[in-house]
Amino acid sequence: MKQFYEAKRVLVTGGLGFIGSNLAIRLLELGASVTVVDSLIAETGGNPFNIHPVQDHPNLSVRTVDVRDVLAMERLVRGKSVVFNLAGQVSHIDSMLDPFTDLEINCRSQLALLDTCRRVAPETKVVFASTRQIYGRVAEELLPVDERQAPSPVDVNGINKLAGERYHVLYNNVYGIHTSVLRLTNTYGPRMLVKNNRQTALGWLIRQALDDEQITVFGDGSQLRDFTYVDDVVEAFLMAGANDAANGQVFNVGAIEPVSLREVTELLIDVAGTGSYRLEPFPAERKVIDVGSIYIDDRKIRRVLKWRPRIELREGLGRTVAFYRAHRAEYWARRPEAEKTAGAA
Amino acid sequence: MKQFYEAKRVLVTGGLGFIGSNLAIRLLELGASVTVVDSLIAETGGNPFNIHPVQDHPNLSVRTVDVRDVLAMERLVRGKSVVFNLAGQVSHIDSMLDPFTDLEINCRSQLALLDTCRRVAPETKVVFASTRQIYGRVAEELLPVDERQAPSPVDVNGINKLAGERYHVLYNNVYGIHTSVLRLTNTYGPRMLVKNNRQTALGWLIRQALDDEQITVFGDGSQLRDFTYVDDVVEAFLMAGANDAANGQVFNVGAIEPVSLREVTELLIDVAGTGSYRLEPFPAERKVIDVGSIYIDDRKIRRVLKWRPRIELREGLGRTVAFYRAHRAEYWARRPEAEKTAGAA
Repeated sequence: MKQFYEAKRVLVTGGLGFIGSNLAIRLLELGASVTVVDSLIAETGGNPFNIHPVQDHPNLSVRTVDVRDVLAMERLVRGKSVVFNLAGQVSHIDSMLDPFTDLEINCRSQLALLDTCRRVAPETKVVFASTRQIYGRVAEELLPVDERQAPSPVDVNGINKLAGERYHVLYNNVYGIHTSVLRLTNTYGPRMLVKNNRQTALGWLIRQALDDEQITVFGDGSQLRDFTYVDDVVEAFLMAGANDAANGQVFNVGAIEPVSLREVTELLIDVAGTGSYRLEPFPAERKVIDVGSIYIDDRKIRRVLKWRPRIELREGLGRTVAFYRAHRAEYWARRPEAEKTAGAA
Repeated sequence: MKQFYEAKRVLVTGGLGFIGSNLAIRLLELGASVTVVDSLIAETGGNPFNIHPVQDHPNLSVRTVDVRDVLAMERLVRGKSVVFNLAGQVSHIDSMLDPFTDLEINCRSQLALLDTCRRVAPETKVVFASTRQIYGRVAEELLPVDERQAPSPVDVNGINKLAGERYHVLYNNVYGIHTSVLRLTNTYGPRMLVKNNRQTALGWLIRQALDDEQITVFGDGSQLRDFTYVDDVVEAFLMAGANDAANGQVFNVGAIEPVSLREVTELLIDVAGTGSYRLEPFPAERKVIDVGSIYIDDRKIRRVLKWRPRIELREGLGRTVAFYRAHRAEYWARRPEAEKTAGAA
């Protein structure tokens, strides 16, 4: 990795967000010259404190630019060897309330970025952050779901993220821009958004546990999910960016093993030493949007890129809890009303 | 049909185009009150002469509006019982040359139409014209391809049409707007575009045969396709619009049987009594975009809606040839340079 990324000029879109900032920090460790771009739109994951450990690093440049600004993005893409493309509208609720903004960010801006690469930076490798949400509800007998499963997104965000994926693969196939797509599941770890539950349910659970509150788990909590520690996800991005075998490919990025929502809640409370939980029947409006168990088959990325997740859930939760105990003030914004749906879980 | 459509207020987007105009004419016969909307953008299928037989019909209203004009569309959607949503950017080449216009028309405008229905006409049924192109290349052992096959669009147009489909299904499932999606194959018949090959290869073949030219068939012409006569496709739209069993469903709309490109060319020349053809090896730039044989399984629409295609290929080609012999002047625009790829075949 160090050999590949040392002195490479790299762009991270959404780079002040959860995964983007962890990736940027790691890239700087590997000797890359990193430009981070983030719109810092309110209520998204962007937080300037996320890059606090590297904020004075001589190889870091931070730009507050919206990916919808095509001309600004063109200047930023020019001359980069790798673009880690993590900027996106990630709220499923917002995508239904304002489908056009989601379309602008998750479709048009992706297409614009790729078209910019084609015109001004055809040698650039682009790694795109997608989501297992594009699979939608999956019948139990089809689990774990692999990349060949027909996607069935259940909201505007899922439809648009899927189109974004396909643009990436298309530009790889037609124009020879090198692109890879990673379908992430439930990524967790330091710097994840915990001020609301727009992105990840787990972030919200962590906040509640650290506030010593009682967490509500709907149903019997037996729904299975994959939880991937952010360092493992960062490693997947780095491998996809460095390896030509990833070009034009879509990869599921999963966890060590699927875990039930009840189990992860219990483990979190145990690790934190604070918080409690209770089971509660699904309210009708949550029942209709519940996707049941979903977990993925990621043998493809393990085979092609030799990636595998390494951080056990207990270990990852421990590091996460420690991070938020140390930096609570930077992440505990005024608590908004709990929203009707959880983000990525 | 007459019972359902009599006195119904119906909107046909893309209504001066090939299928839209045939549908509008049929709807007027059934007693519907029909508003036709078309942008009449140059080089698309829109042609005012297409509705010549009904142009003075008291129940017909024609509006030259671009579906991207959200406010104008809102006025047109209001009060309609059924919207046949056929407006679209259909050129695969254009979608690659100008992906953003394709995105505006095939994604944003579709989302806008659906969102308009949700707001001002929630009782409206919307039937969306999609395409089997969204399947992309399909391995021979998976033919005929049915609706459960994972789509794999091979150009921007296919990606965006697929997103358009999914918005329709989503609005049905989430907001209770009633929508149906028809995936059309190679529709042919009177009023198809023959002035260029942006939409359908068969239209271009018909023009060449009627001009007594030598048609070039690439490869050995053994690639199989479905050809559906436009009256059969119109019937599928009418059935989907009238039947609640179609709500939220995606249907392949196929042909009586798949036919090879060589066979359809020979049949056309025989029916027309003019033209000839020769086989020629694929030029490299066509070989890479050739999808090989593709034909679909449409048992779902035959089962659910009791639709089936009725017009044999020889009969349909005969009617088509007769139409263009009678109305040549209205369809033979200045002949453009043949384009690099054929539209729908």
